[in-house]
Amino acid sequence: MAKSSAGRSSLSRIMQIFAAFDIDAVFLSISQLSTRSGLPLATTHRLVAEMEEFGLLERQPDKTYRLGVRLWEIACRTPGALGLREIAMPHLQAVQARIRQHTQLGILQGREVLFLERLSAREAVVNVTLVGGRLPLHASSSGLVLLAHAEPQVQEEVLSSGLFRYTPGTIQDPDALRAVLQQTRQDGFVCASGYIHPDARGIAVPVSGVNGVVVAAISVVVPNDDAVTTPFVHLLKSASQAISRDLHTAYAPANDPLATPGGRYRMLVNSSMDSMQYLPSAPRADRR
Amino acid sequence: MAKSSAGRSSLSRIMQIFAAFDIDAVFLSISQLSTRSGLPLATTHRLVAEMEEFGLLERQPDKTYRLGVRLWEIACRTPGALGLREIAMPHLQAVQARIRQHTQLGILQGREVLFLERLSAREAVVNVTLVGGRLPLHASSSGLVLLAHAEPQVQEEVLSSGLFRYTPGTIQDPDALRAVLQQTRQDGFVCASGYIHPDARGIAVPVSGVNGVVVAAISVVVPNDDAVTTPFVHLLKSASQAISRDLHTAYAPANDPLATPGGRYRMLVNSSMDSMQYLPSAPRADRR
Repeated sequence: MAKSSAGRSSLSRIMQIFAAFDIDAVFLSISQLSTRSGLPLATTHRLVAEMEEFGLLERQPDKTYRLGVRLWEIACRTPGALGLREIAMPHLQAVQARIRQHTQLGILQGREVLFLERLSAREAVVNVTLVGGRLPLHASSSGLVLLAHAEPQVQEEVLSSGLFRYTPGTIQDPDALRAVLQQTRQDGFVCASGYIHPDARGIAVPVSGVNGVVVAAISVVVPNDDAVTTPFVHLLKSASQAISRDLHTAYAPANDPLATPGGRYRMLVNSSMDSMQYLPSAPRADRR
Repeated sequence: MAKSSAGRSSLSRIMQIFAAFDIDAVFLSISQLSTRSGLPLATTHRLVAEMEEFGLLERQPDKTYRLGVRLWEIACRTPGALGLREIAMPHLQAVQARIRQHTQLGILQGREVLFLERLSAREAVVNVTLVGGRLPLHASSSGLVLLAHAEPQVQEEVLSSGLFRYTPGTIQDPDALRAVLQQTRQDGFVCASGYIHPDARGIAVPVSGVNGVVVAAISVVVPNDDAVTTPFVHLLKSASQAISRDLHTAYAPANDPLATPGGRYRMLVNSSMDSMQYLPSAPRADRR
């Protein structure tokens, strides 16, 4: 990786192995990994053996491989994913406890919305959102909120790309999308009824980060019926304000009177007040 | 990575960069990354640039780096972490809604317990468990349950290693630990009062997987007072049974009458019944 061009491509080959896994393809044989990654079988063999050694892949009794728990453990150090989710979680739980439908947290990633959390209920309406899954910006309520507040360049790219059609209700016309984005900015929320599935209605509001910039969307997915949406919007708006406030105090300098306790743990951890006060001085067995 | 020994070591260097990040060190400068990884500064520079290119690291406005959201997104394809958490989540939420204290899911990883989920409440008791964090097996209730059901070799290794002392209550004597493990197997639960912090009591039960083998522990952390523990144990035991049942139906072959709907999504996703029925045939914009 360091010097040679051959070295340089080794990370790209690892990324090809990673990308071979998908939400509906979590166990793959060596030959499937080779086919899906486009890497020669011998290369795949060697690469998989080394990735297994470091816990990035785990061999199963049936000789297929799955991505390793070690990879997930490393990824838990991401403030942009787990940290944001931890800070938002109590407020997502409060919304979900009230409505008993899907309650979600999403961020802009590339030209799509990536979902960091989705709380559900067994009897909840049909919904395609998955934790770690993505949806197009123009079709999902979270995506519309994020697109409405995205850089003009992102908006232009999405508006000029083909708008994937899930249902007859999915916005197809760039001018109609422009109008929805304008309305979303004005209202502070968006309601996407039947855009992805005729039975489902997404309602989303933006979440502002430390500098007032929109960093996420929170949303609910509820039945697409004649129920009024105002109570959902109010619930989401107050959850969003609470998350913004908690982001602010988590990222405030430690000497700021507003700063939450927790020291260097604050960007990644959101536990009880007593725990946050205790954590910075807690003994750690891994540092004895 | 493929052929040369230089290639082979490039993954090990990437792992060194990953390992430089810790729960209380989530933003690191190039020089901190070099120091903490033990890699030369020039190597660190080149490696970081390439990892950034693939989204594994993200450069911040202050020129520090954090682990990338892309890494977290890839890690969300792990059935052993996210999948297990998804299947357990509704039951963890039900326990937490009842007790309003920390409710946790942990697995054996190496010679420690790794926590996949921790639901908390603002007023909950002090607790050092972190999502993606680890604790020693002998000190935490989850760890004791996992150790009690681990391979004899794991037990011997832990019993013969130094037992880290958090409080005067932490088990220090290997014979006392042996007795606790025996009692845990007999009772089907363990109660660890003040082992990690004098104010906290962990109560944990095992979760059996598809073949009846213990695959996880679920636990609550409650105040270390004179409250009886029986109601917590009952709550945990019925949640554990429900998780085992759901693991069984998630991993059952698709033609098994017990199999939950969701097709190839079942090991990683646990949404509403309507969603699980719809997902296998849902249109995906990324496959148009």
